[in-house]
Parts: sequence; structure tokens; C-alpha cells
Amino acid sequence: MARPVTLFTGQWADLPLATLAQKVSEWGFDGLELACWGDHFEVDKALESDSYVREKRDLLDQHGLKYFAISNHLVGQCVCDPIDTRHSRILPPRLWGDGEAEGVRQRCAEEIKNTARAAKLFGVNVVNGFTGSDVWAKLYFFPPTSQADIDEGYQDFANRWTPIFDVFQAEGIKFGLEVHPTEIAYDIITMHRALAAVNHHPAFGINFDPSHLIHQFVDPAQFIDEFPDRIFHAHIKDSRIQLTGRNSILSSHLDFGDHRRGWDFVSPGHGDVKWDPIIRRLNRIGYQGPLSIEWEDSGMNREFGAQEALRVVRNADYAPSNVAFDAAFGKE
Amino acid sequence: MARPVTLFTGQWADLPLATLAQKVSEWGFDGLELACWGDHFEVDKALESDSYVREKRDLLDQHGLKYFAISNHLVGQCVCDPIDTRHSRILPPRLWGDGEAEGVRQRCAEEIKNTARAAKLFGVNVVNGFTGSDVWAKLYFFPPTSQADIDEGYQDFANRWTPIFDVFQAEGIKFGLEVHPTEIAYDIITMHRALAAVNHHPAFGINFDPSHLIHQFVDPAQFIDEFPDRIFHAHIKDSRIQLTGRNSILSSHLDFGDHRRGWDFVSPGHGDVKWDPIIRRLNRIGYQGPLSIEWEDSGMNREFGAQEALRVVRNADYAPSNVAFDAAFGKE
Amino acid sequence: MARPVTLFTGQWADLPLATLAQKVSEWGFDGLELACWGDHFEVDKALESDSYVREKRDLLDQHGLKYFAISNHLVGQCVCDPIDTRHSRILPPRLWGDGEAEGVRQRCAEEIKNTARAAKLFGVNVVNGFTGSDVWAKLYFFPPTSQADIDEGYQDFANRWTPIFDVFQAEGIKFGLEVHPTEIAYDIITMHRALAAVNHHPAFGINFDPSHLIHQFVDPAQFIDEFPDRIFHAHIKDSRIQLTGRNSILSSHLDFGDHRRGWDFVSPGHGDVKWDPIIRRLNRIGYQGPLSIEWEDSGMNREFGAQEALRVVRNADYAPSNVAFDAAFGKE
Amino acid sequence: MARPVTLFTGQWADLPLATLAQKVSEWGFDGLELACWGDHFEVDKALESDSYVREKRDLLDQHGLKYFAISNHLVGQCVCDPIDTRHSRILPPRLWGDGEAEGVRQRCAEEIKNTARAAKLFGVNVVNGFTGSDVWAKLYFFPPTSQADIDEGYQDFANRWTPIFDVFQAEGIKFGLEVHPTEIAYDIITMHRALAAVNHHPAFGINFDPSHLIHQFVDPAQFIDEFPDRIFHAHIKDSRIQLTGRNSILSSHLDFGDHRRGWDFVSPGHGDVKWDPIIRRLNRIGYQGPLSIEWEDSGMNREFGAQEALRVVRNADYAPSNVAFDAAFGKE
Amino acid sequence: MARPVTLFTGQWADLPLATLAQKVSEWGFDGLELACWGDHFEVDKALESDSYVREKRDLLDQHGLKYFAISNHLVGQCVCDPIDTRHSRILPPRLWGDGEAEGVRQRCAEEIKNTARAAKLFGVNVVNGFTGSDVWAKLYFFPPTSQADIDEGYQDFANRWTPIFDVFQAEGIKFGLEVHPTEIAYDIITMHRALAAVNHHPAFGINFDPSHLIHQFVDPAQFIDEFPDRIFHAHIKDSRIQLTGRNSILSSHLDFGDHRRGWDFVSPGHGDVKWDPIIRRLNRIGYQGPLSIEWEDSGMNREFGAQEALRVVRNADYAPSNVAFDAAFGKE
Amino acid sequence: MARPVTLFTGQWADLPLATLAQKVSEWGFDGLELACWGDHFEVDKALESDSYVREKRDLLDQHGLKYFAISNHLVGQCVCDPIDTRHSRILPPRLWGDGEAEGVRQRCAEEIKNTARAAKLFGVNVVNGFTGSDVWAKLYFFPPTSQADIDEGYQDFANRWTPIFDVFQAEGIKFGLEVHPTEIAYDIITMHRALAAVNHHPAFGINFDPSHLIHQFVDPAQFIDEFPDRIFHAHIKDSRIQLTGRNSILSSHLDFGDHRRGWDFVSPGHGDVKWDPIIRRLNRIGYQGPLSIEWEDSGMNREFGAQEALRVVRNADYAPSNVAFDAAFGKE
Repeated sequence: MARPVTLFTGQWADLPLATLAQKVSEWGFDGLELACWGDHFEVDKALESDSYVREKRDLLDQHGLKYFAISNHLVGQCVCDPIDTRHSRILPPRLWGDGEAEGVRQRCAEEIKNTARAAKLFGVNVVNGFTGSDVWAKLYFFPPTSQADIDEGYQDFANRWTPIFDVFQAEGIKFGLEVHPTEIAYDIITMHRALAAVNHHPAFGINFDPSHLIHQFVDPAQFIDEFPDRIFHAHIKDSRIQLTGRNSILSSHLDFGDHRRGWDFVSPGHGDVKWDPIIRRLNRIGYQGPLSIEWEDSGMNREFGAQEALRVVRNADYAPSNVAFDAAFGKE
Repeated sequence: MARPVTLFTGQWADLPLATLAQKVSEWGFDGLELACWGDHFEVDKALESDSYVREKRDLLDQHGLKYFAISNHLVGQCVCDPIDTRHSRILPPRLWGDGEAEGVRQRCAEEIKNTARAAKLFGVNVVNGFTGSDVWAKLYFFPPTSQADIDEGYQDFANRWTPIFDVFQAEGIKFGLEVHPTEIAYDIITMHRALAAVNHHPAFGINFDPSHLIHQFVDPAQFIDEFPDRIFHAHIKDSRIQLTGRNSILSSHLDFGDHRRGWDFVSPGHGDVKWDPIIRRLNRIGYQGPLSIEWEDSGMNREFGAQEALRVVRNADYAPSNVAFDAAFGKE
Repeated sequence: MARPVTLFTGQWADLPLATLAQKVSEWGFDGLELACWGDHFEVDKALESDSYVREKRDLLDQHGLKYFAISNHLVGQCVCDPIDTRHSRILPPRLWGDGEAEGVRQRCAEEIKNTARAAKLFGVNVVNGFTGSDVWAKLYFFPPTSQADIDEGYQDFANRWTPIFDVFQAEGIKFGLEVHPTEIAYDIITMHRALAAVNHHPAFGINFDPSHLIHQFVDPAQFIDEFPDRIFHAHIKDSRIQLTGRNSILSSHLDFGDHRRGWDFVSPGHGDVKWDPIIRRLNRIGYQGPLSIEWEDSGMNREFGAQEALRVVRNADYAPSNVAFDAAFGKE
Repeated sequence: MARPVTLFTGQWADLPLATLAQKVSEWGFDGLELACWGDHFEVDKALESDSYVREKRDLLDQHGLKYFAISNHLVGQCVCDPIDTRHSRILPPRLWGDGEAEGVRQRCAEEIKNTARAAKLFGVNVVNGFTGSDVWAKLYFFPPTSQADIDEGYQDFANRWTPIFDVFQAEGIKFGLEVHPTEIAYDIITMHRALAAVNHHPAFGINFDPSHLIHQFVDPAQFIDEFPDRIFHAHIKDSRIQLTGRNSILSSHLDFGDHRRGWDFVSPGHGDVKWDPIIRRLNRIGYQGPLSIEWEDSGMNREFGAQEALRVVRNADYAPSNVAFDAAFGKE
Repeated sequence: MARPVTLFTGQWADLPLATLAQKVSEWGFDGLELACWGDHFEVDKALESDSYVREKRDLLDQHGLKYFAISNHLVGQCVCDPIDTRHSRILPPRLWGDGEAEGVRQRCAEEIKNTARAAKLFGVNVVNGFTGSDVWAKLYFFPPTSQADIDEGYQDFANRWTPIFDVFQAEGIKFGLEVHPTEIAYDIITMHRALAAVNHHPAFGINFDPSHLIHQFVDPAQFIDEFPDRIFHAHIKDSRIQLTGRNSILSSHLDFGDHRRGWDFVSPGHGDVKWDPIIRRLNRIGYQGPLSIEWEDSGMNREFGAQEALRVVRNADYAPSNVAFDAAFGKE
Repeated sequence: MARPVTLFTGQWADLPLATLAQKVSEWGFDGLELACWGDHFEVDKALESDSYVREKRDLLDQHGLKYFAISNHLVGQCVCDPIDTRHSRILPPRLWGDGEAEGVRQRCAEEIKNTARAAKLFGVNVVNGFTGSDVWAKLYFFPPTSQADIDEGYQDFANRWTPIFDVFQAEGIKFGLEVHPTEIAYDIITMHRALAAVNHHPAFGINFDPSHLIHQFVDPAQFIDEFPDRIFHAHIKDSRIQLTGRNSILSSHLDFGDHRRGWDFVSPGHGDVKWDPIIRRLNRIGYQGPLSIEWEDSGMNREFGAQEALRVVRNADYAPSNVAFDAAFGKE
């Protein structure tokens, strides 16, 4: 009755999928959300050979694991971003090429289209990911930044992603943007702007993840209220504000996991996300997809944490009411 | 006994200095902090002709206005920033030139050195301003950003600004960085890192401005506690957090003044800055310089606001205690 | 050692008692608090036939379920209320009759007396319920409302309920008012007023239920502190404040379960009730009765919720201390 | 430049208007908002005789007092309310008549139409007031109350007030409902519902008064954001939450001024209303009307309070910005 | 109509009274509350010579200053305290003598009786002060401390102070204990205990001072609610909590004025005391005495502060209401 | 992998160790932290006879219980305290002797040295305890208390404890002060002062216990950040703030367990300690020692509580991360 709980494999790309699948199955997860890096899901191979996706499916089936979505955050990030050396570290050589910015962006745009095609072959109907943004870095409006400057960034997003979304639509696949700082949309207001930029393209929606909203002080429950028909997928990830008056919510260019940061990611249940109002909203909008744990906590053993997180999610998830109390009260 | 109250002229650059000086004097200000843009203070002219600074001084004297510092934020910003078209709007053609990034940066570095020289001629010993930053835009650590990436930015700052600070020191002038997002230092932790990068150069310190700390949730009083000997100048500017659960502290790429933003600048006394603890700290560290109102509030009439702000500051400022209460109690 | 945990059947009146008893027993509850509507407990039949209460008891015994109280909220509500069409929906035809207000009130008053008699036959010594109120609706004092207006309402309560409480006392039964908006008492101050109105009648006390206090910002623990000898029974029910600045604590004439309300009932453990201080108070005043779960949550599956609630209560309940720590510390 | 500040005369109806006008003028108010009770403004007399409104105007002119609106809360209240004896105390005999409910309601409806006509004669274009409500008292949904029950109340409002609003529109007068508990609209959600019920009749809007929102935890600034084109008039009135954990936000049927209440009205500046965000909103929506002090504070001397309130409002009100800061910054 | 505002002279004992009276009169105070140390008011001299109190009165009259109370905190402290060397610094040699503890206590007890006699001669009917406490230092119950241990301290207080209060009563003088840590009563609960210990002696009451309650998190308004008939005098003094998570509310044995303390005294209006609810309470209980500023703020110039405090008090104080709003509303 | 969980036996000294060990072993604890009172661990006997510690070890081994530390709070308290009759109740006759203060102190100092020797024999390397303090009771600086007064107290501590710490160091034992009101160090600032007083003696550190910090509003996590290399042992004990505005954080000389206190000890998980940030800090500083439950809750059955606490600690403890997420992300 409760929703399936999957594990997003992005933070486990150092483990071969076979190893990970074995562990995750033993821990009691219902499935996996495969990341398109490491050997977990390789878009190029999926399109090259008939056997590739079949073997992936067999592996998962063998461990009793289901699959509802794949994710390609890293390649998506490079579609709109101003490219710098950091991007070379998150792309395979075939996409990075000579590193010339526009070439990188275009190769990544094609790869994302291929991700939709591969998803169809694999048998899921959602691809999660990032979009990148040409204007994210202009976030604090100094030097003076005009709305025209920002509009250009949204136009760039529309230009690059509309053709991608058209492919998605043709394949019957949805794209779930993980609304997140560094992306074209990172809060309620910018998500509205991004939707408007692509004329509310039906293939464009949200991979809901509250951990990116908490440190912005955006209420995750109200976020769902705002986009009830665009929640295509949901991540379970937590974050925590740890302000002391001596550190900054902007986090001072400190690494994740540095205890001096003003906020950080933590294992579900250890942060400031309130899960109950989120479950209620997901029930209300009729979301039937998986609750996919994206596990990231720099202060906790990963395997301990994934298992604890699974228990937290199982406890938090419940079905909506099917009874009218007034009716019960009034029955005579 | 109380400190002099000056007005920073940066937000009034649309008015000729003569007009502004007349108004400000009538409103009861004690002096002006001249901005190095508009006709308020022109570094090149100050160095070209003996009469330029004399005439400025005469104008101010004539209105009974004092001067303790000049400010050159816009040029300073271009020393370390990755240059884009927005920078062309804040520089005069002689500095922008062909817009080639490294050339712009170097011309601006020279201009800042000249600003120190001009300050000496004018007769003040503090120049306030910005530094720019090569790494500010990498603020959210995705794509994955290493401390080595950030270290490069601080090294770039050290390389470009150490020679500048040497000129300042030779001229007997201090540089007060307005600690502020988009700069090399924007909070307590990054200010420590910036100081370390230039080996605590004696010419490098702070133009304290609480309005840039409030929306980061940094406590301005604790900021002063942390750098008691580096507070070279102080701005009086206020800001306000206006989070509703539906907007973001990152402010959604919305213009200042847009009521949907998560925070905004407001006239002193209308925001979240608590002035009493700041005055106490300034008293404790023995800061004797001006309280310089940087007036910016997109929702209030500017002339009404400047006058109201002056009253707010006059009421807030008081001298430290000169009595020991225990002594009084115990006296028999 | 811990207190028995029962389920109040009011929200399950759509299920035949036999069905419900089977489920509840399997879930591990210790007993049931039967509602006097549906077929759960019928006052008229209990008084008509010797076998009725015996069969009820047999049914409960057969499932290993205990019983400590019965409840008759709906009929009690009609004793003091101004009667309107809504009341017709909560009364059986024999009590509603022609719907003439005074007649309804008097028939309901007699029915409540009979409820005490039936409770005695059944073998419990507490009847929980509502009283209704002639003045509740005058809650916001406009049009201008005098204390004389309100006093009339309390006098009406005293006139109608004193004879009822006399019957209760004669039968050895206590009446536990569920302190609740729409009743003669809904907080600490009005409970004092209601007690005074009936001269602290020994049969009149409280069915403690924190869920009706939370949204009034009354502290449930202090409520118990205030009436330690009048807590005759306790409901475990939770509620949650969900104010956003855009909705009202008065809840805007929205249905329970509407996510826009300013507060709502939720399953125990999902709301703002803090159970630990309540358990401590119940321990301190020596309350030995059941903890009776009144389960109501418009956003959660009822059967899932009842079972989860049982676990929550079992975890929350504990026995008081029987040791003095200083004594242990000082023992040599 | 700042808005005129008027005094609403409703709380001063014990003083003859001539006496009040004298005082208020000396205190420095700009005008009066006349209440249609006492001798301040009598609708029947205004329609009977040409000289009545002329003499009122002369009296006000003589003291240099302006007028922008009149108010008829008491009669408006009786249009939709279920009538009880409290209403007899707020109506003149000619409207109360024999007290038969429907007759009272209809006479009051006619009187409100006449109030629009009288307002036109007097020379103002706003009438403020209440509407009453047939469903307010059903606020807490017990006995179980359906949306159909509530819909009837809104339909009743539409039936009774649409003809009234038609008269207003014909006369060129606006009706400003003081959104307030006991009325058809008392928060954001119910105001939307009321507007929908009368098809957004152009004559129907709001007399904004934050004091009725504070104790509901509705944010007054967001209220203005929601209805920018329906703010026809503004009251300056403050209220304060004074919860202790032992009292209730519903205020326990205690008189205003009783210190045990959970909230109460207080003189402007003594409560929880934040005036700065309200002034900003009024500036943004271009509200040019008066700020009308409705002074009510059961714990403060009335004449002291009115004068203090005037100072508070004068200090709080300011004009919007007429400068673009980025432009100034960028000017070279 | 407003209450007189006096200055307590204890923190100004380093100035001769003549000097202080001159200043205070020019600043606009209404009177002085003389401290019984320095040359301000000397109990022994007042009893020795007829002229002493006359000359004091003449001096005050000459500056237009009134007097309502005198204060003898330092001597009072020594009546119940365990005496150590710190007490030698607050007593004159004639009371300290050889410093033998019991002798000091008894001499101080006699001196307090004489203070009542001197107050009568001087023409005031309130003496404020401290009592000391034999058990204050046992505040944290380790080593294990029994109620019997504490009861002994209250008995000691009763033994020593009952004869003192008898003298007060005979002279028609009230003793106002400044409820304060280090005294027999420092909060609501201990004040009840102290009153009980002396059988609610009519001469024993309170010099209300909110600054000693704030850092204990006791609500000053509720304190007045609790002892309406025992408020004999009122101090205006403010304090502020300045917790950072790194310092302690117990204040770490740091001096007043050390910015690292968890709380500190500040000039009225600069701290956490909310004056409005206090004024309302004083109005409600009918307190007609002075508001006496006890000025202590280690971070502010004393003369600036006293004058600012006077303005703060004048603005905060207002008379109670003399009008019934409902009556005005209902008047037709 | 997780840390061992032990029970501190101090609150169980009424039970013979054999009885307690049996219970604790059955409940699933990993070990015991023996208190040096009751028959749990007797320093004198340990030094007298070779068999004593062997028998203790055998008893523990037999129940599978480990041991990492012993504790001697009561004797330690008497080293620096001003001695009064309460101390006689916490010392055995051989240490109390004739009760002459200095003699008591010196005998206790010797006993603490012997405790180190006994610890070595027993086979643990940490002794936890208290130090007492000559200045704790001067906590509120009235009568006026100078830093010289306080310095004397810290000098007294240094004089008495340096020789003790020298013995500890010689024996290879650490002393863990339970930072706690009534001791020489009770917060961050006083711990720094105490460390300085003994020149940061390597044998002197901390038995970390958050329950004593919570009611001082010191953040336990920041406490660990401040002394990462001095955390020698950790207690798991919880406390709760229960302020109502009518009670005091100083707790009014009320017994622990009195529901009117402003704070109290409660079983772990029932209070205001947040365990997650503490576990993270312990992980970060590499603390490998036991988590030792000091169970004290005056409102809960002791045996129920100890078992619940064990579950709480087992759930809260987890190992640190051993993976770098960026690395996983970037792996291609």
C-alpha cells in the first residue's frame, strides 16, 4: 500500500552495480534509481547494444529490485552552465572532448536526448537530472544585474532545453529537474519562471527534493502545494541549518561536512525536514511513484545510514484516509 | 562626544556634488564620504591637477562638512572579478578600454593604487571599497569544487592586492574592504582566510557594514568581536529578512525592492540590525571614526529616508561608560 | 504496570462492533471505549433488556478487551446547544422528534441520565461526553456582549446539568466533559467557570484531551496541573498548528483535512502535543485509568494509523519513579 | 506627501461631534472618519434635509478637518446576522422596530443603501462597515458542518448584499468591509470566498484593518499583497497576543481589557502589528487614501492614546522611492 | 497624571548629593530615591540631629525634587547573609566592627530598624532594600540539599526580620524587598515562600524591579499579577539576554559589563523588558507611586543614559482608560 | 563498531553491585562505570588488599561487563568546597572525621590521589569526578565581587589539585571533571579558566555531560568543539527546560523532580539534548571511549528508564563516514 522505497545510486558510484544491488536488496530496499555514471547506467552502451539494458534488468530482477527512474545530473548540468575545469571532472572524455565550452554543451544536450531514448529502452518513464544555468552565478545582483541579464539566461535555457523536452515527449518520458541551487530553478519563484520560459512544456517537471529547499528557508510542503501536477519523482534527502551567529548560511566556501558550515546535508531524520507534511502533500496530489533515498551525510557511516534511512522512510510513509469522519459521527 | 555622522555619496551620484553638499548640510550631517564615481571624486583628475582636491575641500568646508574617507567600490570590484558585460556599465571608458578581461583587471589595480595617492592628497586616511573575487561564483559547491579550486581564488587575490596594499602602506592609507557577498570576504570565516592570504597586511582591513551580514545570519556584533583591530571604517546600512516559507533567502534572481525577495535593504531602523550591540562593540574597541550612512531602500523616498536615518543614528550612538558601579556601591 | 490502552469507537461507527472488536484485539489494544452511536452501545436497548449489556460484555470478553468508560458526545451536545438542522444529523429520530428546540434538549437531557444508568448496568463508572453551550457562538464579543449575557449561558448549563449530575452521583458514575470548543468549557478559565456554575458538583469532571487545547495555545500539562482531582478519563488525540501567515488559526470555515486550515487533527505523534510532560502529570496526580486513543486524521489511512498510534502510546507511557536519587548519592 | 491621518469617531460617540472636532483638530489630526451613530452622522437626517450634510461639512471645515469616508458598522452587522437581543442595543428604535429578525435585516439593508446615498451627498466615496454573517457562529465545525451549510451562508450574503452593492455602484460609492471575525470575511481565504459569492462586484472591497488579523496569525502584509486592488480604505489599529500557556487564543468569553485574555486590542505601536511592511505595501499598491486611526485600548487613557497614536502614524508613514539605485551606482 | 519619575542615587554615590541634585533637576526628573550610602542619606546622622533630615529636604526642595522612598540595600544584605570579606566593602566601620559574623548581622538588623525611624523623620513611607539570605548560595542542590536545609534559611529570615517588620509597622513604614538573586526571595515561588515565612507580615512587600527577573525567564507582568497588593515601589531597570550557545546564563563568574556574559544590565529600552505590559499591570493594580530609574549599564555613558532613560519612561507611562468602548458602540 | 554503552552506578548505590551487575547485564549493557560509594568501588579496600579489585573484575567478567572508568564525585567535591553539614552526608566517617573544614579537604585530596592508584590497580585509565569550588557560591556578583575574589578561588583550585594531577600523571590516569554547576568549571569560559589555572595539566580534562549545559543554554556541541583533546569520558544524561514565565531558570530552591522547577533532569531522549550533533562531534574528535548512561529522572521508573535509555543510545550512536561524496560523483 505504501510507496516503494528506492536508493539513488549516485553516491555509490564507487561500487560496481552488482555489489551495490546485493547489499541494497539485503537491506530491504524495493528498488534502485540508477545514476548515469560509474557503471550503473551507461547511456551510450544502452543505445549501442540490445543486451545492455536487458542485462541491467536481469541483475535487478535477480535481487528483487524494481526501477522507476534513471538520473543523469552530471551531463544535464553541462547543458546550460558556463563550462570551467570543474566540469571536466564530471564528464567522460567522449563528452568533454577538447573542453571548448559550446562544444561541450552541445554534446551534453545530445546525450540528454539519448538518455530519454535509453530510459525508454530500459523501461522507465522518468529521467531525473540537472539543467545547469547560465545565470545562477549572478545570484547576488552585484555588479548591478538587470532583469534583462537574467532573462537572457532563461532564454538560453529555453533554447537549449525545448528541443530536448520535445524528444522526451516523443519518447513518452518525463524530465524531473531536481530543483537545486546552481540550476535554472532552485526555488518556487524560479521554477515558475523556468516553466514559463518553456511554455509549460508537458515533459518538464520536478524531481522533488526537500534538502535543497531547507537551507533556503523554503517550506517543502508549500513547494508541493505550488506544483501539484509537476511532481514527477521524489527524493528523500535531508539537510540541517546549523547557524551560530558566527557562520553564514552561504557556507563560507567550506566543504560539505565541515562542521563550521551554516548548513549541511544529513541522513534523513537527522535534519530539519519535517516528513509528515510532505507525505500528506504527496498523498493529496496522488503521487504514486517511489520515495527514492539520496543518501549523503559526511558525518555518518554510509552503510549504517542507508539502512537507518530506509527505516525512517518506512515509518514516515502512510496511505491517505479513506473514511469520512463526519459520516461516521453522523451515522445513526 | 558622539561620533560624526557622514553620508556615503554612492547612491546619490545622479546629483552634482554641489547640490548634494547643500542638501546634506541643511539636513544636519557632519560630513560626506565621497564616492569615486559621478563627479563626486575623480581619481584621475585629483592626480592631474593641484587644484582639484583643493576645490573639493573648499566646497565641503563651505557647507561645514567634514571628510574621513573616500570610496571606490566599482573599480575595486574589477580587480579580481571574472569580467563580463556588467562590468562595462560600472567603469569609465578609460578603464574598460577594449574590455579584454586581464587588461581591465590590471588597469583597475593601477587605479586603486592611484586612489590611495589621491586620498592622501585629499587628506583622508581610509579608502573603502570592494576587491572582487575569482571564486565567489563557486559559492555552492556543485559541480564538485575542491578546496584547491578555492585556494586558487585566494592566491589570485593575494597576487593582485598585495602590491596594491604595499602602495597603501607607503602612502599611509588603509583599505577598508566592505565585507559583502561577491567579494573575496563576505563573512567571518572568509575574512580570516583573506587576511591569511595576504599575511595580515597592515593596510588591509574592514569597512564594517552590518547590512551584508544580516541576510547571511551572521551576528554583526560577533563580527566586530572577531576583528577588533581591523575595523577601519563603519557604514550604517540596514537589511531585513522577509521569509514567508514561499520565498528563498537566495532571493530568486529578483531585483532589490521586489517585495517577493527573501531579504532586502531598508533604511536604518526599519530592518533587522540591532544597533545597540554594535555601538557597544564600537565603544569597546575604541573606534573613533565616522558612522557613515549608506542609504539604500527601494521602498522609501530617498530624501525623507536620509533625514530619518540621521535621527536614528544620532539616537543610537552614545559614549561608553566612565564609571565603575561597584565602586559607587562600595563607597562609604 | 503501564496503563491500559483503549480505542474510542466514535470514529469507527460505520463498522459493526463485532468487526471492530476483532480488528482491535488483533492489533493489540487492551480495550474499547464504546460510543453511544452506531450499534456500539445503545442506551435505550441497554435499559430495555437484561441481555443487551451482557451480550456486549461477552463480545468484548471474547476478544480479551476491557472497558472503563462509555461516551455519549452527540446527545450531550444537544442538551445546551441552540438546536439547528445540523443536530438532526447527529441524533436518532426518537430524540430528534419534531425538532422543536426545547423538546430536543429535554429528551437529550433524559437520555444522558439514562446513559449513566446504562453505564452502571454495563459495569463502567465513567461516561464521557459533551454538554453543548448556549453561549459558545458568542465567543467573539461582537455585537457587544456583556458578562451578563455570558452568565445566562452558564446558568442555563447549571439548570440543565445539575439534575443530570445528581443522577450520575446517585448511580456512582462520573461525567467526564471533553473540554472542547463548542462546549460550556473549552479551556482552563471556562472550566473553572463551569465548575463554579454547578458548585463543583462531585460528579462533574474532565475527559482530558490535549488535541483541543493545542490550537488554542493552552499547555496541556498546565491544564492537568490546574485540575488534578477532576481528570476522570484521558483521550490520546493529537493536533497540529500549520500557520503560514496566509491562513488563520480560526481555520476559515474549511473542512477538517483541508490542507489550507490553520490547524488540524493528526494521528498521535504527528502533531504538536508533547506526550512526555502529560504522562508525567498523569503519574503525579495518580491517574490510573485508560489512555484511550481517539483516532482522527483526515490525511492518513485509519487502520494504519490506529496501529501506529497504539505503538506511540505504548512507547510514551511509563511508570513514575520509586527511588530517591539523593538518597542513593548520599548512601555510604 | 504623506497620507492624511484621520480619526474614526466610533469609539468617541459619547462626545458630541462639535466637542470631538475641536479636540481632534488641536491634536493635529487631518480629518475625521464619521461613524453613523451618536450624532456624528445620521443617515436618515442626511437624506431628509439639505442642510444636514452642509452643516457637518461646515463644522469640519471650520476646524480644518478633511473627510474621506463614513462608516456604518452597526447597521451593516444586522443585514446578515441571526438577530438576537444584543442587536437591539446597537440599533436605533426605527431600525429595530418589533425586533422580528427578517424585518430587522431588511430595514438594515435599506439603511445601508441609504448610507451610500448620504455619503454621496456628504461628499465622500467610501463607506466602511460590517456585513454580518449567517454562518460565522458555525466556525468550529461541530456539530458536523458541511460545505453545503457554509455555502448557504455565502449565498445569503450574496442575496442580501448584491442589491446593496448595485446601489453603491450607481451612486459611485465603494463599500469597504472591515475584514473581521463575526463577518462574512475575516481572513484571506474567506475574503476570496466572499468576493466570489458576489462575482467580484466592483463596489465591494476592503477597509484594511490589521488588528483583526494579528490574533488570527494572518500576516497583514501578505493580506494586502493578496487584494491590491480591493483596498478602499485603511484603519490603523493594533492588537497583541498575550498567551501564557494558561489562557486561550479564543479568549475564554472574557471582556476586552481583561488581562487574562489571550489577545486584546491596544493602541498603535503597543501591539504586534509591524507598521513598516504595511506602509511599503500601501505604497506599492498606490493607496492614496487616509490612514484612519481606530483607537481602542481598554488599558490606556483615550486622549493620551489618540495623540500618541497620531505621532506613531506620522513617524511610520513615508513616500515610496523615486530613484533607482543601480542607475546611480552605474553612472559614470 | 502620569507617575513621578525619580532617580535612585545608589549608582551615583561617588557624587555629593548637592551636585547630583543639581544635575538631575536640570535633566527634568521629578525626584530622587536616596540611597543610604555615600552622603546621600545617613541613617545615624538622621537620628542624631534634628537638622539633618531638614537640610536634606531643603536641598531637594530647592531643586524642585520630590522623595517617596529611601533605600538601604547594603545594610539589609548583611542581616541574613553568611558574612565574608566582600561585606566589609559595603558597610561603614561602625557596622562592620570587628567583622565577627553574628555581630555584623545584629548591628545591621538594628540599623535597618533605625532606617524605618529615619524614613519617618524624613517623611517617606517606603524603605527599599535587600534582606540577604542564608541559603541563596545553596541554589544548585549539590551537595544534596534537602527542603529541611532550605527551611532553616527561611526560618532564619523570619527570626531576624519579623522584629524588624514590627518596628516598620509601628512607624507606619513599608519595607520593599527588591526581589533579586542573592536575596531570600528572587522569583515568584520564593517570594510566596518568604511571605509565608513571616505570616504575610503587612509591612513586608516588594520593590518591583523587572531587570532581576528577565535573566531568570520570569515574566515581569505575571509577577505583578501574582502580588498585586504587595507592590510598594517600582524600579525601572532593564537587562538583556545575550546567549550565543557558547556562554552561560549563569554568566561564568565574569564581571558585569564583560561582553562574554550570558546576560547583563542595560539602560532602560536597550534590553528585553517590555514596558507596556508592566505599565498596564501597574495601572490595573492602582499603583500610584514613583517609577524610579535605577540606572546601571556598563557600556554607556552614565549621564547620557540617565537622560535617555527619563525620556523612555515618560514615553512609556500612561494613565488607564476611563471609558467603556462597548458603551460608546452601543450608544444610540 | 559503535561505542560501548555503560551504566554509571552512582544512582544505584542502594543496590549491591552483584544485584546491579546481574540486572544490567540482562538488559544488554556493555559495562559499568563504578561509583566510589556504596559497595561498588571502595578505594581504601582496593589499596588494602590484592584480592579486592580482582574480585570486582571477576564479578564483572562473570556478567560479561566491561569497565573503562571509575568515578569519585563525592570525595572530589570536598577538596575545594567550603565544608558544611551537607558534606557530612556524602562522606564516610573516615574522611569526615571531626568535620573541621581544612582537615576534611586534605583527607579528601589524599583520597582522590588514592583513587588514581586504585584505578590503576583495577585496570582503567580514567577517573571521573567533581572538584568542588571555593567560589561557585559567589556566582551572582553581589555583594560586589571582584575578579581578584574569583582569582583566589582558581588559585585555591590550582594549589589543591596540581599535586593530585601529578599523582594521576605518574600513575598514567586521567581525571575527567564533570563540568557542572557547583564545580570549579561549569561552562566553556570557566573550563578555560580552570585549565589555565593548572597550566593545562595533561592529566586534567573532562567527563563530558550535556545535561549540565542545557539549562545554562550552553550548546553541548560547541562545548566539544572547544575542547576536542580534553574529552576523556562521556556521560549520557538529559535535562529539560520547562519555563512558563512564572518560574525561574534558577529553580527556586525546589527539589529535583518538583514539577514547578524551571528545568530538571530527565531520561535520555525526553529532554532538550540533541544527540545527533553530539555524536558527530565525538566522531570528529575521534572519541573511542564508552557512552556512559548516568540515569536520573525523578518522574520515571528507574528500571524502565535504564532500559529505554540503552535503546536510545544504541539508536543514536553511529560511526563516521568513510567515503568522499564528491569523489563518487566525479568518478567516470
